[in-house]
Amino acid sequence: MKNLGYYNGKIGSLEEMTVPMLDRACYFGDGVYDAAYSRNHIVYALEEHIDRFFDSAALLGIEVPMSREELATLIRELVRKVDDGEQFVYWQVSRGTAIRTHAFAGERANIWIMLRPCRLRELYRKNRLISTEDTRFFHCNIKSLNLIPNVLAMQKAVAAGVDECVFHRGDIVTETAHSNISMLKDGKLITHPRDNLILAGVARKHLIEACHHFGIPVEERNYTLAELETADEVILTAAGSLCLSASELDGKPVGGKAPDTLRMLQDYLLADYVEKTGGGVY
Amino acid sequence: MKNLGYYNGKIGSLEEMTVPMLDRACYFGDGVYDAAYSRNHIVYALEEHIDRFFDSAALLGIEVPMSREELATLIRELVRKVDDGEQFVYWQVSRGTAIRTHAFAGERANIWIMLRPCRLRELYRKNRLISTEDTRFFHCNIKSLNLIPNVLAMQKAVAAGVDECVFHRGDIVTETAHSNISMLKDGKLITHPRDNLILAGVARKHLIEACHHFGIPVEERNYTLAELETADEVILTAAGSLCLSASELDGKPVGGKAPDTLRMLQDYLLADYVEKTGGGVY
Repeated sequence: MKNLGYYNGKIGSLEEMTVPMLDRACYFGDGVYDAAYSRNHIVYALEEHIDRFFDSAALLGIEVPMSREELATLIRELVRKVDDGEQFVYWQVSRGTAIRTHAFAGERANIWIMLRPCRLRELYRKNRLISTEDTRFFHCNIKSLNLIPNVLAMQKAVAAGVDECVFHRGDIVTETAHSNISMLKDGKLITHPRDNLILAGVARKHLIEACHHFGIPVEERNYTLAELETADEVILTAAGSLCLSASELDGKPVGGKAPDTLRMLQDYLLADYVEKTGGGVY
Repeated sequence: MKNLGYYNGKIGSLEEMTVPMLDRACYFGDGVYDAAYSRNHIVYALEEHIDRFFDSAALLGIEVPMSREELATLIRELVRKVDDGEQFVYWQVSRGTAIRTHAFAGERANIWIMLRPCRLRELYRKNRLISTEDTRFFHCNIKSLNLIPNVLAMQKAVAAGVDECVFHRGDIVTETAHSNISMLKDGKLITHPRDNLILAGVARKHLIEACHHFGIPVEERNYTLAELETADEVILTAAGSLCLSASELDGKPVGGKAPDTLRMLQDYLLADYVEKTGGGVY
């Protein structure tokens, strides 16, 4: 198959698949998701993404209607059905199917999966960023389907002809439209702490582990947009990009002052990705 | 028909209707909605709700794929197809159907309509409330499909055995899970100003107009939870309830000190509803 949609056991191409109008995802965005990337039909860091998926669901009181192992097995089976081995592997759970009313009453949750051919973003290319006030809700630790502010921010970046949009709450940098953001400064990695203002990114965790591996101190603390502007390197992490860097923020040059450390981290993270998805050369 | 679902021209019972998995409502909650009530198959204040619907869509840059008049005509036609004349009349527009990617590219928007038998909530019954921190995003002036905090707040009310949950941002009272909230105090109506923290409720507007009719001064200003606790009357307004009052907030008595003014407003608003939906007795 060229791509694949799955809904509670039904399978078809993404373009053909339908879902009930009464799924609570359709009118409340009442669900959570996670996403990972595959290469050689092997999903990278699948267990970590599934753990986070269950964490997100639990935070909303949604009971995933299968075990971690069953979900992992299902995803692995479906990934093999798509022709291209490199895929964007996306799955979500919605709270259930019911006549629209805010409160819920123990409906059985629904499992959705969407697979399509997709490569990682180009790791060594420099990204251009703009910034915008973070107007999202205070549940950003939950990877939910309530993504309008993320959509608007990404659209703003596209309209400005750049690659990503950095969110700040007042002065404090939080995330970007669909990545975590960190910086290298004076030999340290500085990244927003894990709280309700950011998602605990799997790629962010891998970056922190890479820093530990190389003896780079890691500070998980609030930092400001002004600090970001003077960063040695600005780093974006997401499942689809591993560890990108930026060269411009709001039209001004940024980063580029610790290229060797940056490259060391990027190479290390890419090597792990390649090794765990069948080896060879990427 | 017992109830009715509509999607881009297709019609069926709500339970049978399906929509494309790739509708952006399904994975981003990328759409807006509005809702009104019908009696005798006549939708109350339909034009006002449609105006607000177009306002919400415009704020997200979604182009509704029909005119106000076409949408009103369509809704009126569909309302006549449902057996029961008293209905919850709900419609939404989603940004379009596409492979999931945050930014958008001029997809044609989709129209969804959901109709089901429903009566107004009992107007003169006293409601019990709890309060919770308002953790929603900063686009509450847009009637969007990103409603997880509203869902959680309403569930909290249900779990506590009460009727509604009052949102406050810090000290400031904003809305409830699905109503505007106002108070009578010392002969005045006090209600949160129209900003990005609340929806500009149609029923709230009708309440303000009723106050003007009776010469009751209206103050649109921020007020605190402590002020609400000492209100003469606490008033909830929504399309499905016109003008409810509360008798309890977080387990303590509230309101009940201006019953005549309250009743005068309720009777006035109900009379308008009855008159514009075929007259008679409700």
